[in-house]
Amino acid sequence: MSDEKLTPRNVDFSEWYNQIVLRAELADYAPVRGCMVVRPYGWALWENIQQALDKRFKETGHVNAAFPLFIPMSFLEKEKEHVEGFSPELAVVTIGGGEKLEEPLVVRPTSETIIGAMYSKWIQSYRDLPVLINQWGNVVRWELRTRLFLRTLEFYWQEGHTAHATEQEAREETMRMLNVYADFAINEAAVPVIPGVKSATEKFAGASMSTTIEAMMQDTRALQSGTSHFLGQNFAKAFNIQFLDENNTLQFCWTTSWGLSTRFIGAIIMTHGDDQGLILPPRLAPIQAVIVPIFKSDLESAPVMEAVTRVQAELKAAGIRLKVDDRTEVTPGFKFNDWEMRGVPLRIEIGPKDVEKSSVALARRDRPGREGKSFVPQAGLAATVADMLTDIQKSLLERATAFRDSHIFDPKDYAELTEVVQNGWALSYWCESTECEAKVKEDTKATTRCIPLDQEEGHGKCIVCGKDAKHKVYFAKAY
Amino acid sequence: MSDEKLTPRNVDFSEWYNQIVLRAELADYAPVRGCMVVRPYGWALWENIQQALDKRFKETGHVNAAFPLFIPMSFLEKEKEHVEGFSPELAVVTIGGGEKLEEPLVVRPTSETIIGAMYSKWIQSYRDLPVLINQWGNVVRWELRTRLFLRTLEFYWQEGHTAHATEQEAREETMRMLNVYADFAINEAAVPVIPGVKSATEKFAGASMSTTIEAMMQDTRALQSGTSHFLGQNFAKAFNIQFLDENNTLQFCWTTSWGLSTRFIGAIIMTHGDDQGLILPPRLAPIQAVIVPIFKSDLESAPVMEAVTRVQAELKAAGIRLKVDDRTEVTPGFKFNDWEMRGVPLRIEIGPKDVEKSSVALARRDRPGREGKSFVPQAGLAATVADMLTDIQKSLLERATAFRDSHIFDPKDYAELTEVVQNGWALSYWCESTECEAKVKEDTKATTRCIPLDQEEGHGKCIVCGKDAKHKVYFAKAY
Repeated sequence: MSDEKLTPRNVDFSEWYNQIVLRAELADYAPVRGCMVVRPYGWALWENIQQALDKRFKETGHVNAAFPLFIPMSFLEKEKEHVEGFSPELAVVTIGGGEKLEEPLVVRPTSETIIGAMYSKWIQSYRDLPVLINQWGNVVRWELRTRLFLRTLEFYWQEGHTAHATEQEAREETMRMLNVYADFAINEAAVPVIPGVKSATEKFAGASMSTTIEAMMQDTRALQSGTSHFLGQNFAKAFNIQFLDENNTLQFCWTTSWGLSTRFIGAIIMTHGDDQGLILPPRLAPIQAVIVPIFKSDLESAPVMEAVTRVQAELKAAGIRLKVDDRTEVTPGFKFNDWEMRGVPLRIEIGPKDVEKSSVALARRDRPGREGKSFVPQAGLAATVADMLTDIQKSLLERATAFRDSHIFDPKDYAELTEVVQNGWALSYWCESTECEAKVKEDTKATTRCIPLDQEEGHGKCIVCGKDAKHKVYFAKAY
Repeated sequence: MSDEKLTPRNVDFSEWYNQIVLRAELADYAPVRGCMVVRPYGWALWENIQQALDKRFKETGHVNAAFPLFIPMSFLEKEKEHVEGFSPELAVVTIGGGEKLEEPLVVRPTSETIIGAMYSKWIQSYRDLPVLINQWGNVVRWELRTRLFLRTLEFYWQEGHTAHATEQEAREETMRMLNVYADFAINEAAVPVIPGVKSATEKFAGASMSTTIEAMMQDTRALQSGTSHFLGQNFAKAFNIQFLDENNTLQFCWTTSWGLSTRFIGAIIMTHGDDQGLILPPRLAPIQAVIVPIFKSDLESAPVMEAVTRVQAELKAAGIRLKVDDRTEVTPGFKFNDWEMRGVPLRIEIGPKDVEKSSVALARRDRPGREGKSFVPQAGLAATVADMLTDIQKSLLERATAFRDSHIFDPKDYAELTEVVQNGWALSYWCESTECEAKVKEDTKATTRCIPLDQEEGHGKCIVCGKDAKHKVYFAKAY
């Protein structure tokens, strides 16, 4: 599996990415065009992502539920922008139980419409509000060009759908969930995303306003990593989601939706990986540390394995997600490469000399070779390992942040903008006109990624047309 | 919601069931024929079921993964019995991205075929075995007559798929997972299922042998509540799942599959519920105890709410899943009915007199009225509540077991068999011929449910034809 070298990132980033996904056994191509199989190691990573997010959703008052996979075609047609956005991407069931269906059923590309239909039934009074529901599940979008995790016909995600009595509450919810995503990305995945507002061109089909967290990959392209939408009363009006307010007046609800998908696994790979393979942030890694026993003879084996068993018990008791690689058919060197490919944050080597000295060798995945190696006493190892995992988590975030910041530019004019977006992001004033946005895209393939929330009040001249502009926007090539 | 009386079980069991599902807000009808929406309270119950099972799967060495929703039609056709069994029930995608597909895609009714195709790619050597993968997800079967949870077009389940080097290992795995299901049903859900082997007629399409856990509902019908299948080499041969054994000889794998679905929620409802509503086993209940504050004036409110807050903190700290019903727009009596409908195992009432006496009133959901009521000191309440929840769990199992055992009969002849299956199960010797099985079904609508594992070695005369028979089987009407 892992005895061949990866194609280096600077030779072919895209090929490097595909090789990691396959060779770290995160996912595989399914026998259906554009679909993927998420393998156990990849799914364990997704389960950890799910847990970290689900905890945050529940802490902010949300509950989970499940809505149908199939949506009547007529539902999608009720919201004009929504159907225009999604109709080219639909998978359609036309036969059920051997018979042609009277009304074709769409395999959900997203669930605003069917959930809207249910909310119109469940919500009667202001006392029923807010409704704060999330769903974990699969959706299907018929994409033509697909990449494992980044863009597949079927993908896994969560989609939150909330209904509120007032516009302000719905706007607050939109921003609350954007912040939940940013907090998750930065503090769990060590992916230093930038939260901001999408342009009208880039927003979700049917939304009044979309927000996003944007991450910079190591090829400097942007990856939209999670989105939170303020839907205004668009879906409430299309699906008749109404309530009697405290004055007994019938009102339309204000709704939001927000989602984060298995695409995020792509963000983790392309933020942290190196030419040896995947590097996983310790807080999300399915295996945080791997123990590799080292011995050459049966004589050496017994004391080494005795130490391994002891260390294993101690680390497990401390809650560290651990694997002992006791394969006999491969060499320690093969194992080192194998676990480096899979991105396990920390390797613990135990050989006869370590047993003698009551020590172990630690190798940090984020610092290759000697630099990342240390020899520490077996006494107090659980604490040493926990501290080092915390440090690796921190270092990964610092490194990714430094990379990102060194590839964000403030071009002085349009000519410079067209240059810097070839190998970075431009943060520039923009007049918010679709024309200027389109010109940049045509000239450079860069799109507006987001108007970052974190910017000083101010104004300047649009980098494209020179007109007055209130906000800076990120221009970047994107996945 | 809950101020109307349920239709009693003895008036119309089926109507009673439907009303509980809707009024306890477990699920609702979706706007797509035969599909359901699992509402937050129902989904929280399912999440607890998932956790209890997933823990057991991982303890027995299994890992989770995700395989595609779509299966090429040609895959299903590779296993003859399998396609015959499932083809009347398929939902078929014929259009993708606006174009007619060259090969129609089936929405998975179960995943043996697509997983088989992947296993043939992943498994090369005996060192790769066993493969022990489970998947949590949704499947679709185009049923004509549907019931919420019991039989819906789309349902949620887990499906385990394992591949082994030897027949014996695969048979052991089949029984291991059957036992996991039985253990879960009995010890988590208090549903006293009977594990056994399915007849050839009742087995899974494509299996060599199917096993099942069968539960008796309060109308004495049987509900198949989970199944585990030994697939022999049927799918290995259809999908070419081969490995090189230790002697370097190419062999076909032996495979198993096993599943338990949201149907199990139906089993819980119909095993434990009463004419006041749902009764949930404490180990799975999303809310184990509800606190209802009782006061008539603002003057009374302050000390009561102070006690409520204190008790709430103490119980939460003890890990009890708790809800405080502090609604002001409804009466305590309305709340009692409401939480009884939702099957919360324990109600804690706190009023001014309780505050005076430093006590609370407890009302057990499993014993209606005075019998289930007790007054206990606030001191040590967490332990009192935990003990009572344990006792409720135990009592529910005992009651369901007593009900089941009092409705299992040992008819002396065929005439008596046809009578007893009208209101119970018959446990009788059967010659294992399809003819005798079919005759019982024609005469009584009862089918063979399972040959129970737990029976003495022996032999007797088939209750239908009088020929020699080695095993007893359960005959019963079923869902």
